Amino acid sequence: MTVANDSDLAVANLMADAARAAILPYFRGTRLETANKLADGFDPVTIADRAAEEAMRAILAEHRPDDGIHGEEFGLHPGNSGRTWVLDPIDGTRAFISGTPTWGVLIALSDADGPMLGVIDQPYIGERFTGTRAGGTLTGPHGSMPLVTRKTETLAQAVLFTTFPEVGTPTEAAAFRAVADKVQLTRYGMDCYAYGLLAAGQIDLVIEAGLNAYDIQAPIAVIEAAGGIVTDWQGGPAYHGGRALAAANQAIHAAALDLLRNA
Amino acid sequence: MTVANDSDLAVANLMADAARAAILPYFRGTRLETANKLADGFDPVTIADRAAEEAMRAILAEHRPDDGIHGEEFGLHPGNSGRTWVLDPIDGTRAFISGTPTWGVLIALSDADGPMLGVIDQPYIGERFTGTRAGGTLTGPHGSMPLVTRKTETLAQAVLFTTFPEVGTPTEAAAFRAVADKVQLTRYGMDCYAYGLLAAGQIDLVIEAGLNAYDIQAPIAVIEAAGGIVTDWQGGPAYHGGRALAAANQAIHAAALDLLRNA
Repeated sequence: MTVANDSDLAVANLMADAARAAILPYFRGTRLETANKLADGFDPVTIADRAAEEAMRAILAEHRPDDGIHGEEFGLHPGNSGRTWVLDPIDGTRAFISGTPTWGVLIALSDADGPMLGVIDQPYIGERFTGTRAGGTLTGPHGSMPLVTRKTETLAQAVLFTTFPEVGTPTEAAAFRAVADKVQLTRYGMDCYAYGLLAAGQIDLVIEAGLNAYDIQAPIAVIEAAGGIVTDWQGGPAYHGGRALAAANQAIHAAALDLLRNA
Repeated sequence: MTVANDSDLAVANLMADAARAAILPYFRGTRLETANKLADGFDPVTIADRAAEEAMRAILAEHRPDDGIHGEEFGLHPGNSGRTWVLDPIDGTRAFISGTPTWGVLIALSDADGPMLGVIDQPYIGERFTGTRAGGTLTGPHGSMPLVTRKTETLAQAVLFTTFPEVGTPTEAAAFRAVADKVQLTRYGMDCYAYGLLAAGQIDLVIEAGLNAYDIQAPIAVIEAAGGIVTDWQGGPAYHGGRALAAANQAIHAAALDLLRNA
């Protein structure tokens, strides 16, 4: 396999393709080849997670040997380029085990300033959200389109997502509620797919807590490429993980941040 | 357009195909042809809802002129065959307006004993769950497979879905909580797609309240075709709407029903 256009995005697309191929046989447990490995005592999501991260690391070993890697399954691999690929082969484990196509493969490329490239891939739907500093694109079952966030200006018009109604600690849940009480619609259960919807101009806010760096770096790059903003709940950088506020634009970000800070 | 195999299921598939074509141009608001109709003051989901139901009614007028129709948008059309097609062109309006591919087209064919045929179609993913008394099938982006529910025997191993954490009234929410407190995993936000996941053997329970007949009749037929059970919260028929308990098998149904009844 060779990279026709040897850009970072082309490498990221190769990685996402490889992760799709590695994971799909284990999703929904319908393929026979899973049976032997399951007999070893591993659950399908663990096997798929590891197989996908190995496949992505193999591509980086070939195409980006000097870059570092930080993966959810196999930890840190130091590099010497100042750049790190941040990988979560299956974000949304609980979605995966319940057959819901809202989990995703997350790939980010970061330097000391944070993520500069991101991919959110949903293999079952065949939908991929990509973002770089040159812009973002959604490629899915009905074609491709540029990623552009919404212009919603007030919380009263906004659609808010988070994955679990509990959000995080009771304090974090209370802060989330302060925003949820002001928006038009709050929805749950979408995992990383919610960040893709925000980048695609479908929703306005995603608020989550308890994140790891590999959960949020790809969403940050995709959303920023589409014109959105991602910070922590104090307005600082979110790429280390923890609490994240993702917003479609500056106005809606400011309105939600004000409530999160004062809750 | 003609029906090669003029069975009820073939008619239902024609209807689902027509609904897909009618709705998809309005989903996620990315197509230009929506702009003119939007200028008339209708929201995209209303336009898509009506267009899909009209398309399905046109197919019934041609292929099943003697059957009755009960549609969410255009109400009752009496028939003289003793059979009624029960239609919800877009179940999951809030999913639709937030770009989430978990809404669905619901088609049921019922007689005095309840639904005998059901279709749950997700047009964006291109996934269709069908069920008749001869069995059920899932056709999706990765091929077709028979629908068979899970054998999970205890609530401690069960995965439970509902759409809104509030479920319904406070009393209904408390009853739902009694079950949610006993299961392995509770997830939210999947709309009618959760019933498809149950039929496909991915999850064990769906509990909802405040349903209309057209929300639940297609899920009943699909789940029963796959070996599952759907009743109200007292163990009686659910096809009139209201409260529904959908379960993968008799054992898990009995365990959940016991908690709902006594909550």
